[in-house]
Amino acid sequence: MVTAEDFVLKGFDKAGDTNNQLGFNVTQASVMQLPGLNTLGISMVRLDFAAPLGLNPPHTHPRATEILVLIEGTLLVGFITTNNTLISTTLQKGDVFVFPNALVHFQLNIGDVNAVAISALSSQNPGTQQVARTLFGASPPVDPAVLAKAFMIDPKLVQLLQNKFKSSS
Amino acid sequence: MVTAEDFVLKGFDKAGDTNNQLGFNVTQASVMQLPGLNTLGISMVRLDFAAPLGLNPPHTHPRATEILVLIEGTLLVGFITTNNTLISTTLQKGDVFVFPNALVHFQLNIGDVNAVAISALSSQNPGTQQVARTLFGASPPVDPAVLAKAFMIDPKLVQLLQNKFKSSS
Amino acid sequence: MVTAEDFVLKGFDKAGDTNNQLGFNVTQASVMQLPGLNTLGISMVRLDFAAPLGLNPPHTHPRATEILVLIEGTLLVGFITTNNTLISTTLQKGDVFVFPNALVHFQLNIGDVNAVAISALSSQNPGTQQVARTLFGASPPVDPAVLAKAFMIDPKLVQLLQNKFKSSS
Amino acid sequence: MVTAEDFVLKGFDKAGDTNNQLGFNVTQASVMQLPGLNTLGISMVRLDFAAPLGLNPPHTHPRATEILVLIEGTLLVGFITTNNTLISTTLQKGDVFVFPNALVHFQLNIGDVNAVAISALSSQNPGTQQVARTLFGASPPVDPAVLAKAFMIDPKLVQLLQNKFKSSS
Amino acid sequence: MVTAEDFVLKGFDKAGDTNNQLGFNVTQASVMQLPGLNTLGISMVRLDFAAPLGLNPPHTHPRATEILVLIEGTLLVGFITTNNTLISTTLQKGDVFVFPNALVHFQLNIGDVNAVAISALSSQNPGTQQVARTLFGASPPVDPAVLAKAFMIDPKLVQLLQNKFKSSS
Amino acid sequence: MVTAEDFVLKGFDKAGDTNNQLGFNVTQASVMQLPGLNTLGISMVRLDFAAPLGLNPPHTHPRATEILVLIEGTLLVGFITTNNTLISTTLQKGDVFVFPNALVHFQLNIGDVNAVAISALSSQNPGTQQVARTLFGASPPVDPAVLAKAFMIDPKLVQLLQNKFKSSS
Repeated sequence: MVTAEDFVLKGFDKAGDTNNQLGFNVTQASVMQLPGLNTLGISMVRLDFAAPLGLNPPHTHPRATEILVLIEGTLLVGFITTNNTLISTTLQKGDVFVFPNALVHFQLNIGDVNAVAISALSSQNPGTQQVARTLFGASPPVDPAVLAKAFMIDPKLVQLLQNKFKSSS
Repeated sequence: MVTAEDFVLKGFDKAGDTNNQLGFNVTQASVMQLPGLNTLGISMVRLDFAAPLGLNPPHTHPRATEILVLIEGTLLVGFITTNNTLISTTLQKGDVFVFPNALVHFQLNIGDVNAVAISALSSQNPGTQQVARTLFGASPPVDPAVLAKAFMIDPKLVQLLQNKFKSSS
Repeated sequence: MVTAEDFVLKGFDKAGDTNNQLGFNVTQASVMQLPGLNTLGISMVRLDFAAPLGLNPPHTHPRATEILVLIEGTLLVGFITTNNTLISTTLQKGDVFVFPNALVHFQLNIGDVNAVAISALSSQNPGTQQVARTLFGASPPVDPAVLAKAFMIDPKLVQLLQNKFKSSS
Repeated sequence: MVTAEDFVLKGFDKAGDTNNQLGFNVTQASVMQLPGLNTLGISMVRLDFAAPLGLNPPHTHPRATEILVLIEGTLLVGFITTNNTLISTTLQKGDVFVFPNALVHFQLNIGDVNAVAISALSSQNPGTQQVARTLFGASPPVDPAVLAKAFMIDPKLVQLLQNKFKSSS
Repeated sequence: MVTAEDFVLKGFDKAGDTNNQLGFNVTQASVMQLPGLNTLGISMVRLDFAAPLGLNPPHTHPRATEILVLIEGTLLVGFITTNNTLISTTLQKGDVFVFPNALVHFQLNIGDVNAVAISALSSQNPGTQQVARTLFGASPPVDPAVLAKAFMIDPKLVQLLQNKFKSSS
Repeated sequence: MVTAEDFVLKGFDKAGDTNNQLGFNVTQASVMQLPGLNTLGISMVRLDFAAPLGLNPPHTHPRATEILVLIEGTLLVGFITTNNTLISTTLQKGDVFVFPNALVHFQLNIGDVNAVAISALSSQNPGTQQVARTLFGASPPVDPAVLAKAFMIDPKLVQLLQNKFKSSS
């Protein structure tokens, strides 16, 4: 028997805690929080960005396109195409933006006030890979030789970055 | 060549005009307004409900599930299952609710202030059928014999309703 | 181990009982009756319409397109598009008609003899919402204020209709 | 502008011409005959089988499951699974049977009267491969060495069969 | 907890045993051998063809397109369209070829050395129907009357073929 | 009219040129090179890795799962889950490995000889994002403030990396 409880989730009016290195927080309404979404191919998140420069760092959703509406503040947003072209713009309150399926994208608070956005994703379980943390903070760690060559940096810098991500997780 | 303009739409901070019989307005961000949504399987709308009793009347989206977050106000929401069970609840600011794919559903402002919601839909072109207007306001009109028998009402009442919808369209 | 029993269903040569308010009956071959349909995305129904004026009232299939062939009799059929246009015609024996995915549609026996149709649906579990019964016969009932405003009728008429559907279910 | 003509097809009450080697005829309602089916994932056919022993020979639909209802007569039907198990039964008037997606299947009139069936397929353009004709009647012909080894027969018999199919096409 | 073991399979460097009537062997990497493929819509096989004239006989994959790369040797390959046209060519080492979804196709070693190919299929569980064995080697056997009429051959030849396939299985 | 030319592509026996910073080359058989793949949901690539330490750097395929078979050499391979767990192993000749849809993954030649792999992807147009180049080599460049904060590094180091990727493109 389904009931209304399976289809409702409270709390998207509460600001997430942005007191962290990125100045950023995400509140989720995926199938784990909202069981009624099962098989329905959609979900929602609230995004909070501290001022100034709260950042949702470059990341992908392996199984979803994202459509975002800015509720408060000013965001620099962008995604990169498979041709390595950056598609970017500045959003003001009330602007809607699309991040196509599984492409790397980011959002940065470039205004003076905290920013708030609502995003919907085209999967009940979209998943997220924060690219920097995926590469330098994976457990067990990725072989430094892979990252040194990929980023054209010294292996010692790779290990320094891996230590930073390890201690910040 | 894609550009940022294909992926951005302005204006979701503006209240829609609810000065109409229903006290309701919908602002769309579908593939017609946002060409970057093409093939991506998602879209967004802003819903405005006048106080008191602004109504998004019973309707379906033939090609989409809807997930709604209430930004301002108080809404009575509900959908009816294929077993004819009403799943309904009252939403306060910050609540998220799910309306499963293509089922009849509605939202009613039962608060003292204008209500505002953001919804996402699992299609770039979800379509909408307002049930009462679909039945009584179609052009050309549906044969009154069909509607009289379906609703167990007098054919004269059907024609009266058809005239009301015709003059209000 | 699958056996032929999982893939066969008897009885589509038997007329359904149309001795009811609508003069209509549907015999189903969905995944519940025919387990071999599981995951295969198709199902079938037999539709019986008493003469005169047996009615399959306005309804949707939330998860399916329907293709119908008229075996006996004469039917007035129609569906309404998301632009509120009625697409309608009269079918004679041997005519095939298409009702696109999840749109409101109906069939009415306008001939002198009982009508029989076979329909296939593009889901093993298409579901059905009879619009009038969904709105006025849901359990628990939809708030009369919603229906009064949606249909531009008096709340007392709403309750009268809700009582009719309650007593006829 | 869509019109009712895009959604209707006449003629499924007419028996197809079974005066051929197989004693069999198929009348199609696919997207080529019924443009309204475009993108909707379903289609229909009428199947006529002469008495006795009219045969819809072993074939596949590369893009569709088939659900069949027998309108008149008696059919021996069957499909073979990917484990090489024959799932077969005898259908009487009014029986419904399912042939899962793309598997080899057949129908044989084993009664004394002409048989008529209606089938629906889970694609607007299901396609058909009659296996014997596909193998021995393709143009240009399949190398006889392939068919001789596959069927464990003499290459001369292969060419004799290829000539038969060529002259009967 | 997923582990690397779920995503790895050993042994595609080993030649399959082609000491059989067809001179052919297939080594599979489907979801049964590689559980990590579950829901991912792809799989792989290694194909070995003895010299001369090792044959992958005419067959279908009911749920998959196949893309093949020839690693060693020379193959005559082909598929037949739903218009009964043979699309065929000779592949040399390093050539890639496509066999569209569920169509009948074959590969024959026409070189002097053993041939080896790698194919990928667009399903984690594509299934296979070898057409000759499906028709003449099914269990229980297909009624000889069906096969005699379909192939325009004598029923006694049908039974002779059925016996051959039975004893070779 | 389709012909065999639409379905065949030559050249996968030729080693790609690995004389570059990564010691790596990819040869593609996607819908752009093989038009017969259109709509069929699969494609293939040949991957060449110089010895020692040729690297296919961390990247995603936004629209595809990848299944790889190692033809020659020894590879360290891995992907990172959305829980930030590294799933990694060493492949020898003949091993098959799966990289699930759109997740970050890599392959590194850890052997003494050039390595060669064949991969299939579950899309006719899978796309690729090399993560480091996507972030630091996009055109126009991503705002250094985004990358500095995401990687917890100095903005001057970001610009140094951006210059490296610019001059190596």
